[in-house]
Amino acid sequence: MPLVRISLRAGKPAAYRRAVADAVHQAMMETINVAPTSRFQLITEHAPEDLIYDPTHLGIQRTDDVVFIQITLAAGRTPDQKRALYKRMAELLTEKVGMRPQDVFINLLDAPRENWSLGNGEAQLFQP
Amino acid sequence: MPLVRISLRAGKPAAYRRAVADAVHQAMMETINVAPTSRFQLITEHAPEDLIYDPTHLGIQRTDDVVFIQITLAAGRTPDQKRALYKRMAELLTEKVGMRPQDVFINLLDAPRENWSLGNGEAQLFQP
Amino acid sequence: MPLVRISLRAGKPAAYRRAVADAVHQAMMETINVAPTSRFQLITEHAPEDLIYDPTHLGIQRTDDVVFIQITLAAGRTPDQKRALYKRMAELLTEKVGMRPQDVFINLLDAPRENWSLGNGEAQLFQP
Repeated sequence: MPLVRISLRAGKPAAYRRAVADAVHQAMMETINVAPTSRFQLITEHAPEDLIYDPTHLGIQRTDDVVFIQITLAAGRTPDQKRALYKRMAELLTEKVGMRPQDVFINLLDAPRENWSLGNGEAQLFQP
Repeated sequence: MPLVRISLRAGKPAAYRRAVADAVHQAMMETINVAPTSRFQLITEHAPEDLIYDPTHLGIQRTDDVVFIQITLAAGRTPDQKRALYKRMAELLTEKVGMRPQDVFINLLDAPRENWSLGNGEAQLFQP
Repeated sequence: MPLVRISLRAGKPAAYRRAVADAVHQAMMETINVAPTSRFQLITEHAPEDLIYDPTHLGIQRTDDVVFIQITLAAGRTPDQKRALYKRMAELLTEKVGMRPQDVFINLLDAPRENWSLGNGEAQLFQP
Protein backbone atom coordinates (compact mmCIF):
# COMPACT_ATOMS: atom_id res chain seq x y z
CA MET A 1 0.00 0.00 0.00
CA PRO A 2 2.75 2.52 0.11
CA LEU A 3 2.21 5.54 -2.10
CA VAL A 4 5.56 6.59 -3.51
CA ARG A 5 6.41 9.95 -5.07
CA ILE A 6 9.66 10.08 -7.01
CA SER A 7 10.86 13.51 -8.12
CA LEU A 8 13.83 14.12 -10.36
CA ARG A 9 15.22 16.49 -12.90
CA ALA A 10 13.67 16.23 -16.36
CA GLY A 11 15.71 14.64 -19.11
CA LYS A 12 16.33 11.08 -18.03
CA PRO A 13 14.94 8.45 -20.41
CA ALA A 14 11.84 6.49 -19.45
CA ALA A 15 13.94 3.36 -18.94
CA TYR A 16 16.04 5.17 -16.34
CA ARG A 17 12.98 6.42 -14.50
CA ARG A 18 11.56 2.92 -14.55
CA ALA A 19 14.77 1.46 -13.17
CA VAL A 20 14.67 3.98 -10.31
CA ALA A 21 11.09 2.99 -9.51
CA ASP A 22 11.98 -0.71 -9.72
CA ALA A 23 14.88 -0.32 -7.27
CA VAL A 24 12.75 1.69 -4.85
CA HIS A 25 10.11 -1.01 -4.86
CA GLN A 26 12.60 -3.85 -4.51
CA ALA A 27 14.14 -2.20 -1.45
CA MET A 28 10.70 -1.96 0.16
CA MET A 29 10.00 -5.62 -0.57
CA GLU A 30 13.33 -6.73 0.87
CA THR A 31 13.36 -4.67 4.06
CA ILE A 32 9.88 -3.70 5.23
CA ASN A 33 7.63 -6.54 4.06
CA VAL A 34 5.95 -4.72 1.23
CA ALA A 35 4.24 -7.24 -1.07
CA PRO A 36 5.42 -7.41 -4.68
CA THR A 37 1.96 -6.33 -5.82
CA SER A 38 1.75 -3.44 -3.39
CA ARG A 39 3.20 -1.03 -5.90
CA PHE A 40 1.88 2.46 -6.49
CA GLN A 41 4.40 5.05 -7.69
CA LEU A 42 4.12 8.52 -9.14
CA ILE A 43 7.11 10.01 -10.93
CA THR A 44 7.41 13.75 -11.53
CA GLU A 45 10.05 15.44 -13.63
CA HIS A 46 11.12 18.98 -12.84
CA ALA A 47 12.89 21.64 -14.88
CA PRO A 48 16.32 22.53 -13.43
CA GLU A 49 15.02 25.72 -11.87
CA ASP A 50 12.16 23.83 -10.22
CA LEU A 51 14.25 21.25 -8.38
CA ILE A 52 16.39 23.05 -5.86
CA TYR A 53 18.84 21.13 -3.71
CA ASP A 54 21.87 21.97 -1.66
CA PRO A 55 24.99 20.30 -3.12
CA THR A 56 26.83 19.84 0.18
CA HIS A 57 24.36 19.80 3.11
CA LEU A 58 25.61 17.54 5.94
CA GLY A 59 28.80 17.02 3.95
CA ILE A 60 27.04 14.93 1.30
CA GLN A 61 28.04 15.89 -2.25
CA ARG A 62 24.90 15.94 -4.38
CA THR A 63 24.61 16.42 -8.13
CA ASP A 64 21.87 17.21 -10.62
CA ASP A 65 21.06 13.50 -10.58
CA VAL A 66 19.60 13.83 -7.08
CA VAL A 67 16.30 11.99 -6.67
CA PHE A 68 13.72 12.78 -4.00
CA ILE A 69 11.74 9.75 -2.85
CA GLN A 70 8.82 10.54 -0.56
CA ILE A 71 6.99 7.43 0.62
CA THR A 72 3.70 7.40 2.48
CA LEU A 73 3.64 4.15 4.43
CA ALA A 74 1.27 2.36 6.77
CA ALA A 75 2.47 3.35 10.23
CA GLY A 76 4.19 0.76 12.38
CA ARG A 77 7.65 0.29 10.93
CA THR A 78 10.42 0.53 13.52
CA PRO A 79 13.39 2.87 13.22
CA ASP A 80 15.57 -0.16 12.51
CA GLN A 81 13.36 -1.22 9.63
CA LYS A 82 13.46 2.29 8.25
CA ARG A 83 17.25 2.36 8.44
CA ALA A 84 17.45 -0.96 6.64
CA LEU A 85 15.17 0.47 3.98
CA TYR A 86 17.38 3.51 3.36
CA LYS A 87 20.53 1.43 3.21
CA ARG A 88 19.11 -1.08 0.77
CA MET A 89 17.46 1.56 -1.39
CA ALA A 90 20.72 3.44 -1.83
CA GLU A 91 22.54 0.16 -2.56
CA LEU A 92 20.05 -0.93 -5.20
CA LEU A 93 19.91 2.48 -6.85
CA THR A 94 23.69 2.39 -7.09
CA GLU A 95 23.88 -1.19 -8.28
CA LYS A 96 20.94 -1.30 -10.68
CA VAL A 97 20.70 2.28 -11.91
CA GLY A 98 24.23 3.56 -11.48
CA MET A 99 23.14 6.36 -9.17
CA ARG A 100 25.55 7.86 -6.65
CA PRO A 101 24.34 7.03 -3.12
CA GLN A 102 24.82 10.69 -2.20
CA ASP A 103 22.02 11.55 -4.63
CA VAL A 104 19.39 9.43 -2.90
CA PHE A 105 17.15 11.58 -0.68
CA ILE A 106 14.39 9.68 1.12
CA ASN A 107 11.57 10.88 3.35
CA LEU A 108 8.85 8.75 4.93
CA LEU A 109 5.37 9.79 6.00
CA ASP A 110 3.52 7.42 8.31
CA ALA A 111 -0.23 7.05 7.87
CA PRO A 112 -2.30 4.84 10.19
CA ARG A 113 -4.16 1.91 8.72
CA GLU A 114 -7.52 3.67 8.66
CA ASN A 115 -6.04 6.27 6.31
CA TRP A 116 -5.96 4.01 3.27
CA SER A 117 -8.46 2.93 0.69
CA LEU A 118 -6.93 0.88 -2.10
CA GLY A 119 -10.08 0.75 -4.19
CA ASN A 120 -13.82 0.10 -4.01
CA GLY A 121 -14.34 2.77 -1.36
CA GLU A 122 -13.25 0.39 1.38
CA ALA A 123 -10.58 0.73 4.08
CA GLN A 124 -8.87 -2.58 3.35
CA LEU A 125 -6.09 -2.19 5.90
CA PHE A 126 -8.29 -1.30 8.84
CA GLN A 127 -9.88 -3.80 11.23
CA PRO A 128 -12.43 -1.99 13.41
CA MET B 1 -8.82 23.42 4.71
CA PRO B 2 -7.93 20.08 3.27
CA LEU B 3 -5.18 20.15 0.68
CA VAL B 4 -6.00 17.58 -1.98
CA ARG B 5 -3.59 16.13 -4.53
CA ILE B 6 -5.19 14.26 -7.41
CA SER B 7 -2.87 12.31 -9.70
CA LEU B 8 -3.94 10.58 -12.87
CA ARG B 9 -2.72 9.53 -16.26
CA ALA B 10 -2.42 12.32 -18.81
CA GLY B 11 -4.99 12.47 -21.60
CA LYS B 12 -8.33 13.03 -19.91
CA PRO B 13 -10.11 16.25 -20.94
CA ALA B 14 -10.23 19.17 -18.53
CA ALA B 15 -13.95 18.57 -17.96
CA TYR B 16 -13.22 15.05 -16.76
CA ARG B 17 -10.51 16.23 -14.38
CA ARG B 18 -12.86 18.88 -13.06
CA ALA B 19 -15.60 16.32 -12.50
CA VAL B 20 -13.19 14.15 -10.53
CA ALA B 21 -12.23 17.12 -8.35
CA ASP B 22 -15.91 18.04 -7.89
CA ALA B 23 -16.82 14.53 -6.73
CA VAL B 24 -13.86 14.39 -4.34
CA HIS B 25 -14.93 17.67 -2.78
CA GLN B 26 -18.59 16.71 -2.57
CA ALA B 27 -17.71 13.50 -0.72
CA MET B 28 -15.72 15.50 1.81
CA MET B 29 -18.60 17.91 2.35
CA GLU B 30 -21.09 15.10 2.81
CA THR B 31 -19.11 12.89 5.17
CA ILE B 32 -16.50 14.81 7.15
CA ASN B 33 -17.95 18.30 7.55
CA VAL B 34 -15.73 20.07 5.09
CA ALA B 35 -17.24 23.46 4.21
CA PRO B 36 -18.19 24.07 0.57
CA THR B 37 -15.66 26.89 0.41
CA SER B 38 -12.88 24.82 1.95
CA ARG B 39 -11.65 23.69 -1.42
CA PHE B 40 -7.99 23.52 -2.41
CA GLN B 41 -7.06 20.92 -5.00
CA LEU B 42 -4.00 20.27 -7.11
CA ILE B 43 -4.27 17.97 -10.10
CA THR B 44 -1.21 16.41 -11.72
CA GLU B 45 -1.18 14.44 -14.93
CA HIS B 46 1.45 11.76 -15.48
CA ALA B 47 2.76 10.05 -18.59
CA PRO B 48 1.95 6.32 -18.65
CA GLU B 49 5.48 5.38 -17.61
CA ASP B 50 5.33 7.80 -14.67
CA LEU B 51 2.20 6.42 -13.05
CA ILE B 52 2.89 2.89 -11.94
CA TYR B 53 0.16 0.83 -10.32
CA ASP B 54 -0.45 -2.82 -9.67
CA PRO B 55 -3.51 -4.03 -11.61
CA THR B 56 -4.60 -6.69 -9.12
CA HIS B 57 -3.24 -5.90 -5.62
CA LEU B 58 -5.63 -7.12 -2.88
CA GLY B 59 -7.78 -8.66 -5.61
CA ILE B 60 -8.90 -5.26 -6.91
CA GLN B 61 -8.80 -4.98 -10.70
CA ARG B 62 -7.34 -1.59 -11.62
CA THR B 63 -7.06 0.00 -15.05
CA ASP B 64 -5.19 2.91 -16.58
CA ASP B 65 -8.03 5.11 -15.33
CA VAL B 66 -6.80 4.70 -11.75
CA VAL B 67 -6.76 7.96 -9.81
CA PHE B 68 -4.62 8.60 -6.72
CA ILE B 69 -6.23 10.99 -4.26
CA GLN B 70 -3.97 12.08 -1.40
CA ILE B 71 -5.69 14.36 1.07
CA THR B 72 -3.98 16.27 3.87
CA LEU B 73 -6.66 16.87 6.51
CA ALA B 74 -6.92 18.58 9.85
CA ALA B 75 -6.40 15.75 12.34
CA GLY B 76 -9.36 14.57 14.38
CA ARG B 77 -11.56 12.57 12.06
CA THR B 78 -12.52 9.16 13.41
CA PRO B 79 -11.95 5.90 11.54
CA ASP B 80 -15.69 5.71 10.96
CA GLN B 81 -15.74 9.14 9.34
CA LYS B 82 -12.82 8.15 7.17
CA ARG B 83 -14.58 4.97 6.07
CA ALA B 84 -17.71 6.96 5.22
CA LEU B 85 -15.52 9.31 3.18
CA TYR B 86 -14.00 6.49 1.11
CA LYS B 87 -17.36 4.89 0.45
CA ARG B 88 -19.01 8.10 -0.66
CA MET B 89 -16.05 9.22 -2.74
CA ALA B 90 -16.03 5.98 -4.70
CA GLU B 91 -19.81 6.19 -5.14
CA LEU B 92 -19.72 9.76 -6.41
CA LEU B 93 -16.80 9.12 -8.74
CA THR B 94 -18.74 6.20 -10.19
CA GLU B 95 -22.03 8.04 -10.41
CA LYS B 96 -20.86 11.46 -11.59
CA VAL B 97 -17.71 10.66 -13.56
CA GLY B 98 -18.27 7.09 -14.67
CA MET B 99 -15.16 5.85 -12.91
CA ARG B 100 -14.84 2.24 -11.81
CA PRO B 101 -14.75 2.08 -8.01
CA GLN B 102 -11.74 -0.22 -8.27
CA ASP B 103 -9.80 2.69 -9.76
CA VAL B 104 -10.24 4.98 -6.76
CA PHE B 105 -7.12 4.97 -4.56
CA ILE B 106 -7.32 7.24 -1.51
CA ASN B 107 -4.74 8.08 1.14
CA LEU B 108 -5.16 10.52 4.02
CA LEU B 109 -2.49 12.45 5.90
CA ASP B 110 -3.49 13.98 9.22
CA ALA B 111 -2.03 17.35 10.16
CA PRO B 112 -2.79 18.99 13.52
CA ARG B 113 -4.54 22.33 13.54
CA GLU B 114 -1.39 24.34 14.14
CA ASN B 115 0.01 23.01 10.87
CA TRP B 116 -2.19 25.17 8.65
CA SER B 117 -2.08 28.72 7.42
CA LEU B 118 -4.82 29.49 4.90
CA GLY B 119 -3.53 32.96 4.09
CA ASN B 120 -2.25 36.17 5.65
CA GLY B 121 0.49 34.38 7.56
CA GLU B 122 -1.93 33.35 10.30
CA ALA B 123 -2.75 29.94 11.77
CA GLN B 124 -6.50 30.25 11.38
CA LEU B 125 -7.35 26.78 12.66
CA PHE B 126 -5.32 26.96 15.84
CA GLN B 127 -6.57 28.33 19.19
CA PRO B 128 -3.62 28.70 21.55
CA MET C 1 16.21 18.75 5.98
CA PRO C 2 12.77 20.00 5.22
CA LEU C 3 11.31 18.83 1.93
CA VAL C 4 9.30 21.67 0.44
CA ARG C 5 6.70 21.40 -2.31
CA ILE C 6 5.66 24.67 -3.91
CA SER C 7 2.68 24.55 -6.26
CA LEU C 8 1.48 27.46 -8.35
CA ARG C 9 -0.26 28.33 -11.56
CA ALA C 10 1.85 27.98 -14.69
CA GLY C 11 3.05 31.13 -16.41
CA LYS C 12 5.27 32.89 -13.90
CA PRO C 13 8.87 33.39 -15.06
CA ALA C 14 11.64 31.27 -13.58
CA ALA C 15 12.97 34.29 -11.67
CA TYR C 16 9.62 34.69 -9.92
CA ARG C 17 9.50 31.02 -8.97
CA ARG C 18 13.03 31.26 -7.67
CA ALA C 19 12.18 34.32 -5.59
CA VAL C 20 9.24 32.45 -4.05
CA ALA C 21 11.52 29.54 -3.15
CA ASP C 22 14.13 31.93 -1.74
CA ALA C 23 11.60 33.65 0.50
CA VAL C 24 10.20 30.34 1.72
CA HIS C 25 13.67 29.17 2.65
CA GLN C 26 14.64 32.45 4.31
CA ALA C 27 11.52 32.32 6.51
CA MET C 28 12.47 28.81 7.64
CA MET C 29 16.01 29.90 8.47
CA GLU C 30 14.80 32.90 10.45
CA THR C 31 12.07 31.26 12.48
CA ILE C 32 12.59 27.52 12.91
CA ASN C 33 16.36 27.05 12.88
CA VAL C 34 16.67 25.54 9.46
CA ALA C 35 20.29 25.70 8.29
CA PRO C 36 21.05 27.72 5.16
CA THR C 37 22.26 24.55 3.46
CA SER C 38 19.20 22.55 4.46
CA ARG C 39 17.40 23.44 1.28
CA PHE C 40 15.40 20.95 -0.80
CA GLN C 41 12.51 22.37 -2.79
CA LEU C 42 10.32 21.05 -5.56
CA ILE C 43 8.25 23.48 -7.61
CA THR C 44 5.30 22.33 -9.69
CA GLU C 45 3.35 24.45 -12.11
CA HIS C 46 -0.29 23.69 -12.81
CA ALA C 47 -2.63 24.65 -15.63
CA PRO C 48 -5.48 26.88 -14.45
CA GLU C 49 -7.96 24.02 -14.45
CA ASP C 50 -5.59 21.89 -12.36
CA LEU C 51 -5.14 24.32 -9.49
CA ILE C 52 -8.48 24.78 -7.80
CA TYR C 53 -8.85 27.19 -4.90
CA ASP C 54 -11.68 28.95 -3.19
CA PRO C 55 -11.38 32.74 -3.61
CA THR C 56 -13.01 33.68 -0.30
CA HIS C 57 -12.75 30.81 2.22
CA LEU C 58 -12.46 32.11 5.80
CA GLY C 59 -12.93 35.62 4.43
CA ILE C 60 -9.52 35.64 2.75
CA GLN C 61 -9.59 37.03 -0.80
CA ARG C 62 -7.40 34.80 -2.96
CA THR C 63 -6.38 35.32 -6.58
CA ASP C 64 -4.85 33.23 -9.33
CA ASP C 65 -1.47 34.08 -7.83
CA VAL C 66 -2.19 31.77 -4.88
CA VAL C 67 0.76 29.55 -3.97
CA PHE C 68 0.50 26.30 -2.03
CA ILE C 69 3.52 25.56 0.12
CA GLN C 70 3.56 22.10 1.69
CA ILE C 71 6.54 21.51 3.92
CA THR C 72 7.56 18.17 5.41
CA LEU C 73 9.56 18.99 8.53
CA ALA C 74 11.39 17.08 11.24
CA ALA C 75 8.83 16.83 14.04
CA GLY C 76 9.36 18.86 17.18
CA ARG C 77 8.55 22.45 16.31
CA THR C 78 6.14 24.10 18.73
CA PRO C 79 2.91 25.78 17.68
CA ASP C 80 4.53 29.14 18.44
CA GLN C 81 7.43 28.40 16.12
CA LYS C 82 5.00 27.36 13.42
CA ARG C 83 3.04 30.57 13.81
CA ALA C 84 6.22 32.61 13.56
CA LEU C 85 7.07 30.71 10.40
CA TYR C 86 3.74 31.51 8.73
CA LYS C 87 3.94 35.18 9.66
CA ARG C 88 7.47 35.60 8.39
CA MET C 89 6.87 33.62 5.24
CA ALA C 90 3.91 35.78 4.27
CA GLU C 91 5.90 38.93 5.07
CA LEU C 92 8.87 37.88 2.98
CA LEU C 93 6.75 36.75 0.05
CA THR C 94 5.05 40.15 0.13
CA GLU C 95 8.24 42.12 0.55
CA LYS C 96 10.55 40.22 -1.78
CA VAL C 97 8.20 38.83 -4.40
CA GLY C 98 5.29 41.24 -4.31
CA MET C 99 2.80 38.52 -3.44
CA ARG C 100 -0.42 39.34 -1.64
CA PRO C 101 -0.34 37.74 1.84
CA GLN C 102 -3.82 36.39 1.19
CA ASP C 103 -2.34 34.22 -1.56
CA VAL C 104 0.07 32.36 0.73
CA PHE C 105 -1.31 28.94 1.69
CA ILE C 106 0.96 26.88 3.94
CA ASN C 107 0.62 23.35 5.28
CA LEU C 108 3.14 21.47 7.40
CA LEU C 109 3.65 17.74 7.72
CA ASP C 110 5.69 16.51 10.69
CA ALA C 111 7.96 13.52 10.20
CA PRO C 112 9.98 12.05 13.06
CA ARG C 113 13.76 12.05 12.84
CA GLU C 114 14.00 8.41 11.83
CA ASN C 115 11.94 9.20 8.72
CA TRP C 116 14.73 11.00 6.88
CA SER C 117 17.70 9.92 4.81
CA LEU C 118 19.53 12.83 3.24
CA GLY C 119 21.87 10.69 1.21
CA ASN C 120 24.16 7.66 1.38
CA GLY C 121 21.38 5.40 2.65
CA GLU C 122 21.85 6.65 6.19
CA ALA C 123 19.38 8.14 8.69
CA GLN C 124 21.46 11.20 9.51
CA LEU C 125 18.92 12.82 11.84
CA PHE C 126 18.31 9.77 13.99
CA GLN C 127 20.31 8.80 17.09
CA PRO C 128 19.35 5.29 18.17
